[in-house]
Amino acid sequence: MASLRNDPAVAVVGATGAVGEELLSLLEQRRFPARSVRVFASPRSAGKVLRAMGRSVTVEPLAPGCFDGTDVAFFSASAGVSREWAPQAVASGAWAVDKSSAFRMDPRFPLVIPEVNGDELDALRAPTIVAVPNCSTIIALVAVTPLHREAGVARMVVSTYQAASGAGAAAMAELEQQAREFAAGAPYTTAIFGRQYLFNVFSHNSTVGPDGQNDEERKLVDETRRIWRDPSVMVSATCVRVPVLRAHSESINLTFRRPLSEERARQVLAAAPGLQLVDDRAANRFPEPIEAAGRDPVLVGRIRADGSQPDGMGLSIFVSGDQVRKGAALNGIQIAERLLGRG
Amino acid sequence: MASLRNDPAVAVVGATGAVGEELLSLLEQRRFPARSVRVFASPRSAGKVLRAMGRSVTVEPLAPGCFDGTDVAFFSASAGVSREWAPQAVASGAWAVDKSSAFRMDPRFPLVIPEVNGDELDALRAPTIVAVPNCSTIIALVAVTPLHREAGVARMVVSTYQAASGAGAAAMAELEQQAREFAAGAPYTTAIFGRQYLFNVFSHNSTVGPDGQNDEERKLVDETRRIWRDPSVMVSATCVRVPVLRAHSESINLTFRRPLSEERARQVLAAAPGLQLVDDRAANRFPEPIEAAGRDPVLVGRIRADGSQPDGMGLSIFVSGDQVRKGAALNGIQIAERLLGRG
Repeated sequence: MASLRNDPAVAVVGATGAVGEELLSLLEQRRFPARSVRVFASPRSAGKVLRAMGRSVTVEPLAPGCFDGTDVAFFSASAGVSREWAPQAVASGAWAVDKSSAFRMDPRFPLVIPEVNGDELDALRAPTIVAVPNCSTIIALVAVTPLHREAGVARMVVSTYQAASGAGAAAMAELEQQAREFAAGAPYTTAIFGRQYLFNVFSHNSTVGPDGQNDEERKLVDETRRIWRDPSVMVSATCVRVPVLRAHSESINLTFRRPLSEERARQVLAAAPGLQLVDDRAANRFPEPIEAAGRDPVLVGRIRADGSQPDGMGLSIFVSGDQVRKGAALNGIQIAERLLGRG
Repeated sequence: MASLRNDPAVAVVGATGAVGEELLSLLEQRRFPARSVRVFASPRSAGKVLRAMGRSVTVEPLAPGCFDGTDVAFFSASAGVSREWAPQAVASGAWAVDKSSAFRMDPRFPLVIPEVNGDELDALRAPTIVAVPNCSTIIALVAVTPLHREAGVARMVVSTYQAASGAGAAAMAELEQQAREFAAGAPYTTAIFGRQYLFNVFSHNSTVGPDGQNDEERKLVDETRRIWRDPSVMVSATCVRVPVLRAHSESINLTFRRPLSEERARQVLAAAPGLQLVDDRAANRFPEPIEAAGRDPVLVGRIRADGSQPDGMGLSIFVSGDQVRKGAALNGIQIAERLLGRG
């Protein structure tokens, strides 16, 4: 069993960002047994005062030796910051729970969704980096893994409906700003995405590779294979931004290795951790991002056999999950809770 | 060859709706050679004055004999209105181009996207009803049919990003109203969909059947098979509303019967009618609904081989098309133009 002392000294790196703020709020809400909390951010935020576990704490800049005495450090800044500082946190004796993409595909470090492969944490003996998957991967796999365990997913076709929050607090603010500008008849501010976002949809703003996949899509493919420890699973993803503030939705079509009835799929999903079924056909109530926002569970619905595949071999679902919470901060805290033996 | 006289007397039924207005505007823009235009709507709109072909015309209520002397009647009202009145238009000697769902699956009448199966019009000898497919079907098939002709589509997995306009002008107005209410900090008006639409996404508001498919999804399946005259093609659809005003987008994953390279697919799409390629990977420019709005072509991009299928056997694309225009009014006018021998 892993060893994180039961009253850990906590550090939050990137504390002033959307995910950092959510981390601080969740540490308090979940009564995380922190002995102390230190908050770090970029030099321009240093000196700012934040609330953490009911106390006022002053934002510090990262500096050599800054993790001395820290037991667990949550990283929610850029991949560059994580690459430089997460190894230093570990060298100081801390666990580093990293939300960035820096170490996700590094075989030296586990990539963990506690509901899916939390067992990988139990095998760890000494402080190390633990990577948090990309938000779209987390939200998809919390719902798809129970079905995968039951029937073996051979192929998954995913189209996403991604919120502003994935691009940070400034992107959320700009989307809200555009709504105010629409109401005022003013021109749109387009500093973040360089385009009108309100009343629009656009391909995810990550780099597109020579194969036509963007980085967000590639993460869904690569991380799913790594987390499931199954390089044979086929994933086809199309990642799209929609004008929603902070919860991602995903339309997921599955092909199974073994037949799975719609009824059994519904039972499996109802019993799975981290999920809430929202699947009322008569009332036309299914997962919606505004209902997932600010909540822990991933909502799953539109559970239906796929008539375009042989009987029992295909299923479609639709999920919504809070990108800032389960897609990032909550997943990180759940990792630390499992390291504490509380998860 | 079909016979619509070359200076037809036109009637537009449902002239005050979003599609009716677009029909009147397109008749003028496209210099449709109408000898005259009469406009019909519900009794509460009767007496209202509209602009049609540069002239003022007064809205009339539907009444027995109202189509006497009409050569072509466009129906863009409810299915109930079409069921009652389109046969009367034909009995009066008019062609009835029907945008509603009333006759789409009726084998007595053709269901036509001119770019796809316009040849079905050429075989007609006498005035009849011609059905316009559902908007999502039109927008998908303008892009997918050229690939189907080249490589045979065996299966299509579609997730839609549908605009407010599909639910009419009042739904568009309510979405705009919600943006103003957000800016004012006022509660949202939710008369149309019964929920917050701004900053949200929700499953299409059509009835969900016992198999879990909603009517919009069923139309995509049934109409694709009918238009392609291929009951063996498999279609899996998930239809979703996004807070966009008037253009639908669709993420489409294809499985072919014969291999098709990405390069050849791009050539085929570039040469196909009714399409415009927007596929700039370096600039991250792909189809967006705000760019499709108010324009004739369906935009197609994100053209990429699907690595989740055997080499050459799968492809993904993303399309955006104006729901009011090509998804409804324009397709209807193109049908009439083809009947005139001008299409």
